[in-house]
Amino acid sequence: MTAKFEIPKPDKELIDKANKVKKAYLNNCQADDLQRKKAINYMADALLNNTEKILEANNSDVKSAESKGISSSLISRLRLSKDKLNLGIEGVRKVGQLDDPLGEIQINKELSEGLILQRKTVPIGVIGVIFESRPDAVMQISSLAIRSGNGLILKGGSEANHTNIALVNALKDGLKNSEINEDTICLLTNRKDSMSLLNLENDINLIIPRGSNELVRFIQENTKIPVLGHADGICHIYVDNEVDIDLAIRVSLDSKIQYPAACNAIETLLIHKDIAKEFLNKAIPMFKAKDVKLKGDKISQSFGVKFSANNEDWKTEYLDKVLSVKIVEKLDDAILHIQKFGSKHTDGIITKNDKNAKKFMNLVDSAGVFHNCSTRFADGFRFGFGAEVGISTQSMPPRGPVGLEGLVTYKYFLTGEGQIVEDFSSGKQIFTHRDL
Amino acid sequence: MTAKFEIPKPDKELIDKANKVKKAYLNNCQADDLQRKKAINYMADALLNNTEKILEANNSDVKSAESKGISSSLISRLRLSKDKLNLGIEGVRKVGQLDDPLGEIQINKELSEGLILQRKTVPIGVIGVIFESRPDAVMQISSLAIRSGNGLILKGGSEANHTNIALVNALKDGLKNSEINEDTICLLTNRKDSMSLLNLENDINLIIPRGSNELVRFIQENTKIPVLGHADGICHIYVDNEVDIDLAIRVSLDSKIQYPAACNAIETLLIHKDIAKEFLNKAIPMFKAKDVKLKGDKISQSFGVKFSANNEDWKTEYLDKVLSVKIVEKLDDAILHIQKFGSKHTDGIITKNDKNAKKFMNLVDSAGVFHNCSTRFADGFRFGFGAEVGISTQSMPPRGPVGLEGLVTYKYFLTGEGQIVEDFSSGKQIFTHRDL
Repeated sequence: MTAKFEIPKPDKELIDKANKVKKAYLNNCQADDLQRKKAINYMADALLNNTEKILEANNSDVKSAESKGISSSLISRLRLSKDKLNLGIEGVRKVGQLDDPLGEIQINKELSEGLILQRKTVPIGVIGVIFESRPDAVMQISSLAIRSGNGLILKGGSEANHTNIALVNALKDGLKNSEINEDTICLLTNRKDSMSLLNLENDINLIIPRGSNELVRFIQENTKIPVLGHADGICHIYVDNEVDIDLAIRVSLDSKIQYPAACNAIETLLIHKDIAKEFLNKAIPMFKAKDVKLKGDKISQSFGVKFSANNEDWKTEYLDKVLSVKIVEKLDDAILHIQKFGSKHTDGIITKNDKNAKKFMNLVDSAGVFHNCSTRFADGFRFGFGAEVGISTQSMPPRGPVGLEGLVTYKYFLTGEGQIVEDFSSGKQIFTHRDL
Repeated sequence: MTAKFEIPKPDKELIDKANKVKKAYLNNCQADDLQRKKAINYMADALLNNTEKILEANNSDVKSAESKGISSSLISRLRLSKDKLNLGIEGVRKVGQLDDPLGEIQINKELSEGLILQRKTVPIGVIGVIFESRPDAVMQISSLAIRSGNGLILKGGSEANHTNIALVNALKDGLKNSEINEDTICLLTNRKDSMSLLNLENDINLIIPRGSNELVRFIQENTKIPVLGHADGICHIYVDNEVDIDLAIRVSLDSKIQYPAACNAIETLLIHKDIAKEFLNKAIPMFKAKDVKLKGDKISQSFGVKFSANNEDWKTEYLDKVLSVKIVEKLDDAILHIQKFGSKHTDGIITKNDKNAKKFMNLVDSAGVFHNCSTRFADGFRFGFGAEVGISTQSMPPRGPVGLEGLVTYKYFLTGEGQIVEDFSSGKQIFTHRDL
């Protein structure tokens, strides 16, 4: 238990709000596919109709952030241009087109004559989303929640307060035209609520944090509610001795620089000693040309890596154009390094040797184990899920990039004709356990 | 955060033990189906060969428990007769015959030409099992862990210490004949270890508690490791107004008395007001004949229920021949009662009206929602899973009775030919997202 911070108890106002969402969710969870699809289109229409209001609200947030001297990267995330808003609206409509995640029959089985077991997907319940200043997240997560029949409690960064209020008002306007209750979505604007909602374990069934590693880690450590997300993304690529060096450099470069701030970008390159000199001779100028700072162990420095890396580096997610380099004796040492320093996100091997690839992929206990391709493919859209709710680095499912699947659970539906267990214990009736 | 107890930090000895299991697990997780099957048969053989030692050890535990004046129900659970041991050994062999839970391909997809994504089931890692004095649990859970390729750390009740040591020694003897490392299973015998292992979140991937509600609740509240299990089992049956009364009584009786101490036995009977008098007139003598004490609300008392129930009763798991009775105005009130007092385990409706059944099953947010059959069917074996690792009452999967499926997770395996994301961003390559 690493909790050091006393999370406040939810006050009556927050509990009432949560109960309102829960009640609306329960009303909705009987809504069919078409009703949910329609609701999402109404939401998109309402966002479009409220474009001016939303952009004005955002403008006021941006101005206030600028006057407070907030960092330019944060302001660029906060700013909602007309194009960005339209992209968001387009994203909402796309979520409406995703296959219905509810009612999928996972098990269909006769337990005994007339006693039928079905396991079907159902909504999870009420989902709490805590996000930093990303107005696009409001649109995306709201449409995903409605598509999957869940209730939603949103808590955004205070810098985006006006924008978030304008967005949520528009979304609720849209829901008013639909058969989904507008109370299904609730925006919390009070800073203390984002803390105390971590204690709403009876009313919130899942928390999704969208923001920095620190935010995610804080939430994971301070709630009993399941959290979908990950803190660190310390991804590796191991370059084996049996490789096509050009391919290895291409993939390593892409894994680092295609978007260095992403969680699926690599932080450490592990290189087999037999290939290290040749690889680095060719790779160092190419990384340099892309402004990547290389930090290496002693041996790699002797091959031209300029800066030195220490134990801290192996556990650092740079989120920047920095890459640590380590030379390993053999495949097993690369695996051991990843087992010790990795964050169970995504790790890859570059090799022509399929046996080595298989061993690496079996023994590296990460959500994604990749062979001869960029770690940047670890993404719900690139995996073809049509949406990404988050990337999870826990051992238990859902793991890795999570699409709409992460917003549903299942229930067992058992239908009989008066069957009792005593008849089976006494041998009067028998189980057939026949798949239907 | 309800943690009030300071969980001790794991000491070096415990960390070393956990690392030994982890290392053995990593060696094993490449073992194939046949190797794991054989290992389980060797385990069963070794248990058989060590019958005398095991029974002697158990005898000494039972004697010592008796001399300490431990309750007879606990002693009966602790006692291992030759028959009970043989049943346990038979159970081990049966686990060996279960379908391989590993390597199941859940997703098989071409992302782009030559870039193939597979999602396959893999072991979870190291599983920690904390159980009270049930020697049979050692055999069952060990075989399930080996079948699913996991490592296992066991911590049993101190009353069963000699028995557990004898059982685990036999199991390890068996593993010595197999290709699975004997260090895959570790028994902790020191009482402090069962506490501090709750803090081993880097080394243990899942905790399964086997014991009282209090034990489970304590563990759930004091660890960041995922816990598979449930504390309360407050199950309900709602008798609708459109029913066959004899069928309703039969199912209610079975749900209560077939095994009253089970988590899937009902604690509360909800009855529609229009049928209450007729139902209770017939049901009361039948419950009385089976020694079931009925406690009811005012109205049900006016129909002959002898004892009175209060708000405490609705949230009590009697685990005994006691049943609380409440008369409700309508279906919706039954659903509201369950939403308020239920524990998301298993709840049933008895009705001839399929629309009511559907509404009940949709709106009651429990792992099992049953129609016209006993709640006692909520069980991994009766569901035909061939094993039961536990019953989970959380909202997220795994939920309800969990078989071997609860001991596996999945990984994403992505295999390419040098593909990089930049080529897809620039439009040079396109995603095909084609199921294979």
